Amino acid sequence: MKKNIAALGMAAAMLLGGGEAALADQTTRATLRPVLTMEQAQEMLRAASEEARRGGHAVCISIVDRSGQTLAVLRHHDAGVHTLEASYKKAYTAASQKRKTLDIAKGVRDGSIPEDIRYLDHRFSLMEGGVPIVLDGSVVGGIGVGGAHGGEDSRIAAAALATLE
Amino acid sequence: MKKNIAALGMAAAMLLGGGEAALADQTTRATLRPVLTMEQAQEMLRAASEEARRGGHAVCISIVDRSGQTLAVLRHHDAGVHTLEASYKKAYTAASQKRKTLDIAKGVRDGSIPEDIRYLDHRFSLMEGGVPIVLDGSVVGGIGVGGAHGGEDSRIAAAALATLE
Amino acid sequence: MKKNIAALGMAAAMLLGGGEAALADQTTRATLRPVLTMEQAQEMLRAASEEARRGGHAVCISIVDRSGQTLAVLRHHDAGVHTLEASYKKAYTAASQKRKTLDIAKGVRDGSIPEDIRYLDHRFSLMEGGVPIVLDGSVVGGIGVGGAHGGEDSRIAAAALATLE
Amino acid sequence: MKKNIAALGMAAAMLLGGGEAALADQTTRATLRPVLTMEQAQEMLRAASEEARRGGHAVCISIVDRSGQTLAVLRHHDAGVHTLEASYKKAYTAASQKRKTLDIAKGVRDGSIPEDIRYLDHRFSLMEGGVPIVLDGSVVGGIGVGGAHGGEDSRIAAAALATLE
Amino acid sequence: MKKNIAALGMAAAMLLGGGEAALADQTTRATLRPVLTMEQAQEMLRAASEEARRGGHAVCISIVDRSGQTLAVLRHHDAGVHTLEASYKKAYTAASQKRKTLDIAKGVRDGSIPEDIRYLDHRFSLMEGGVPIVLDGSVVGGIGVGGAHGGEDSRIAAAALATLE
Amino acid sequence: MKKNIAALGMAAAMLLGGGEAALADQTTRATLRPVLTMEQAQEMLRAASEEARRGGHAVCISIVDRSGQTLAVLRHHDAGVHTLEASYKKAYTAASQKRKTLDIAKGVRDGSIPEDIRYLDHRFSLMEGGVPIVLDGSVVGGIGVGGAHGGEDSRIAAAALATLE
Amino acid sequence: MKKNIAALGMAAAMLLGGGEAALADQTTRATLRPVLTMEQAQEMLRAASEEARRGGHAVCISIVDRSGQTLAVLRHHDAGVHTLEASYKKAYTAASQKRKTLDIAKGVRDGSIPEDIRYLDHRFSLMEGGVPIVLDGSVVGGIGVGGAHGGEDSRIAAAALATLE
Amino acid sequence: MKKNIAALGMAAAMLLGGGEAALADQTTRATLRPVLTMEQAQEMLRAASEEARRGGHAVCISIVDRSGQTLAVLRHHDAGVHTLEASYKKAYTAASQKRKTLDIAKGVRDGSIPEDIRYLDHRFSLMEGGVPIVLDGSVVGGIGVGGAHGGEDSRIAAAALATLE
Repeated sequence: MKKNIAALGMAAAMLLGGGEAALADQTTRATLRPVLTMEQAQEMLRAASEEARRGGHAVCISIVDRSGQTLAVLRHHDAGVHTLEASYKKAYTAASQKRKTLDIAKGVRDGSIPEDIRYLDHRFSLMEGGVPIVLDGSVVGGIGVGGAHGGEDSRIAAAALATLE
Repeated sequence: MKKNIAALGMAAAMLLGGGEAALADQTTRATLRPVLTMEQAQEMLRAASEEARRGGHAVCISIVDRSGQTLAVLRHHDAGVHTLEASYKKAYTAASQKRKTLDIAKGVRDGSIPEDIRYLDHRFSLMEGGVPIVLDGSVVGGIGVGGAHGGEDSRIAAAALATLE
Repeated sequence: MKKNIAALGMAAAMLLGGGEAALADQTTRATLRPVLTMEQAQEMLRAASEEARRGGHAVCISIVDRSGQTLAVLRHHDAGVHTLEASYKKAYTAASQKRKTLDIAKGVRDGSIPEDIRYLDHRFSLMEGGVPIVLDGSVVGGIGVGGAHGGEDSRIAAAALATLE
Repeated sequence: MKKNIAALGMAAAMLLGGGEAALADQTTRATLRPVLTMEQAQEMLRAASEEARRGGHAVCISIVDRSGQTLAVLRHHDAGVHTLEASYKKAYTAASQKRKTLDIAKGVRDGSIPEDIRYLDHRFSLMEGGVPIVLDGSVVGGIGVGGAHGGEDSRIAAAALATLE
Repeated sequence: MKKNIAALGMAAAMLLGGGEAALADQTTRATLRPVLTMEQAQEMLRAASEEARRGGHAVCISIVDRSGQTLAVLRHHDAGVHTLEASYKKAYTAASQKRKTLDIAKGVRDGSIPEDIRYLDHRFSLMEGGVPIVLDGSVVGGIGVGGAHGGEDSRIAAAALATLE
Repeated sequence: MKKNIAALGMAAAMLLGGGEAALADQTTRATLRPVLTMEQAQEMLRAASEEARRGGHAVCISIVDRSGQTLAVLRHHDAGVHTLEASYKKAYTAASQKRKTLDIAKGVRDGSIPEDIRYLDHRFSLMEGGVPIVLDGSVVGGIGVGGAHGGEDSRIAAAALATLE
Repeated sequence: MKKNIAALGMAAAMLLGGGEAALADQTTRATLRPVLTMEQAQEMLRAASEEARRGGHAVCISIVDRSGQTLAVLRHHDAGVHTLEASYKKAYTAASQKRKTLDIAKGVRDGSIPEDIRYLDHRFSLMEGGVPIVLDGSVVGGIGVGGAHGGEDSRIAAAALATLE
Repeated sequence: MKKNIAALGMAAAMLLGGGEAALADQTTRATLRPVLTMEQAQEMLRAASEEARRGGHAVCISIVDRSGQTLAVLRHHDAGVHTLEASYKKAYTAASQKRKTLDIAKGVRDGSIPEDIRYLDHRFSLMEGGVPIVLDGSVVGGIGVGGAHGGEDSRIAAAALATLE
């Protein structure tokens, strides 16, 4: 059945622009979507915190589901408390916008995205460190890292995402 | 593949107690879940508003996804503005608690559920009119109706749910 | 055209249970509703504040529109600051529930209304002193008074409503 | 009675600058205003969602009443959760400001409107896709669309408004 | 001029029931009220924290002005973080209600005050430890203490109030 | 006693820079401050609403006390609902900053005030139309007007302030 | 130095009643407190999630620091979204109150604790499943579990706490 | 034991970049951190308020713990109410970012810090007057001053910090 799903997925992706793969259970009326599991989120936390430790960074890692609700959080005891809201906003923004917060920031800088996108949702952040989580071509959530510099936040998020490949 | 899914679903339901059917795409690492589609939510609004019209009730209908986020709302122009928050809370509570708000209220009255469940989440309501939405044995969201009396709110929600059968 | 409106109003009231009179502009597709004007709200403040002065009460008076949004507020400089939220909640509750807050409180006491109605909307109050404002049989808003005892709050609200007759 | 209303409407519009037509029920003291009905809002959702489907866009559509309170919402199951707040803010801004969010954004860009208008209300958005809803020359609410690009959001809102003509 | 003030104060107190003394500057149109000064609040913190130390209690002390806005806070480094909100709510309630939180709690218990007073303002608390601050017969604010048992909270508040005599 | 007060006032003003006149009741330990009375606020609403009517503007007028808490509000039934928050923020900003919102905006434009002052308090607005209310050289509150253009908002606020002279 | 610390700890505990051990670094002016580390929180999540898996429960686990701020969260993908707020409130309440939420609930039931403790802080929950985290006799935070029945929530929390022994 | 702590501290500081000194109690598994005590905070308030008095400034001083929660506040009775939120945000920002708000503002101006840092946390302020509090090389909290001009706010904060040396 994989091929059908893939085909549907591509078709839907083209239709929706939303980057979503529409999976249909052929035998029922239900539309299916992949979900990020607790086990996957836990493994992402492990990989991200190890990467942070390697770099000697005290950060907070937040992972949200496809509706922007928290699945997992891990904050270093020496990371500033603002990293809780910062990492959440980055994860929320990436999951809901289906692109990296860094790419939105670039779009605003080069004028291809109106700067008021900043205020579209009070949970948005355009700071680097938020990345969407994709499974089978469908955005299932987002991860956000805060507490280090943007580039390092991204490297830590990448280490987490690598566990899903 | 339906049988396998059903089997898996039952097994998972027993394991999780969460009433969720764990659907696994055999060919990938992704765990699948049914989602309530916009089309299904729109059809539910249609049926619920017609049932309300038949009864001459000015109500608000809210439908939320599996993470408690709004998918659809329809408020009669003569329904009090509180029906917005009321119907949302009922839908949120039913979706997240995976049972009818009426059943939670009964549990509190008969002492089988601590009354402090009321305050567990500021989006909770124990008023009748909230019902979970189930597809393929998995809770995909909730519907809440506010503005009529509890029994009528339930009848309107039932009319919406009938469209999914 | 008054008679037609009245007729329509009665019919609608029976249909809706919402106590609303559905006014239809025969010559367009628009449905009309009476609104509480700034001038009427200002006159209500005048009458209520005079009644409060007569009784020697330091109160706050809030008036909301049919959607529960503030139209007018007047707080005595010696009234506790909580009277702002208290009078607003009473006005909001009465306007949206289309009945006196006192009547809801009675219903809860005698068991005819579930006590969880308290938590249906975070802007609700069941304290005496909130009264719906009706024009041409349609609820156009609510008035709430806080700072005196319940009975006196009601008397002050009544003085304001008398200006609309 | 249409002519009188129109006359009054024009006169009032000139007086108020608020773009409102003041309708007076000659036979009572009540001032009348058109309201957007549930049926009209439901029809707007239908037209907007069809237009979105044609374009293959996963969007959220919000419709608010003249006081900025939600009348209807419909979110595609693949639209990011931020489209809920985004479409609401656009609808709220257009209804309350009585002009398109796009026009406010242009005013800010060309300096004719102070940029701090952004912060005047925490529910404001200057992103394209919010349009006021006018009946009989009176603003009865607003519609906001989020999830596609600005231009497409506007086209979807226009499709909804066309149902009122 | 003291006697005049006292006289006026009594008269006003009788008129207002609000327990406020109306002070009038004879030579201008301005109505005067005593205010709690920073120096007085600081002295209250000193006395309250010493009393807490004597009793070996880790508490938080909050002092608010006549409009319920914070003038001073002091929290022991081992006092639970909830004592911040708890002491603030007690101070706010006492200042705005112009009576001790303990007296309101008693009134609710004996039925002389409706229990819904709890929900009149989201900043209310009926827990013992909130006391109004009175100068020249006028309520100028409130003090709230949280972290110890009710009786001890009251003793600590009393120690602070003693500095004003 | 006026001269003493004036003298004290000047001295205090020089000391505090806060623009406050420190009034001391010679015969007690209480420090006195003028307060804006309900009667004065009511008169301000009357004058402001008349000025708005003359100009044909549908506006909202908010008046706050020296602690930024609402004393009075009056909103025209055709003024957008955002004028509630807008006028409140203007009044709050002017009362707390002890200067006109227009002057703060100018300071930000000419660089003499850091632009981040915008975000210092979530109730701040730098839009024209907020003016402090001064009695006996002491800031007792603020008035904010929203719904017309900045210049007209200021004219309406000025009409209200004229009633205090 | 351990004995001194222990001695100091006991003494302080007796003094403070707050159950805190006051650790003093003899060679500086700094007062020391143990903190819960990220590594310890991560290990607690591991043990708790394994215990939940064993019982087949879909739960959310929240861990907060001594100031009630989140250190770690892990939510099962089939746990209702309310378990986020529920587990946080339980952890916050236990950490700040320095006792189990179950014990507070018992105190309220037997009348030894006023029921209004429920409303002392909007982040409080009296539902079973919140337990304080103690290191070296000092409360360093709290853990809360939500999604199963109270008793099971407690067993899962206990499994997490066992990792600290 | 001081040397070991210092050594560990330096090592940790290099590792963490977070500027934190990791103190380990050799005889237990607990990691220790210095905390700012109530007594130290109280002394800081005293020094800061005296410095403000010398300069004739009506300000608000806020002190927060390492998790950004309030330890102490003192507001002059003539300081605008916004100084409460302003001083809190400055203290919160400095404590969590582990640097002066002034330095963040400079970084944003010279482009070394993205301007969106402003919106990372709704409790952030980039206005001068927020300074981190460091004990034994570890950030234990922050102090914020609001109400005077930036430079004076900083001088007042410095006077408070001097009491810790």
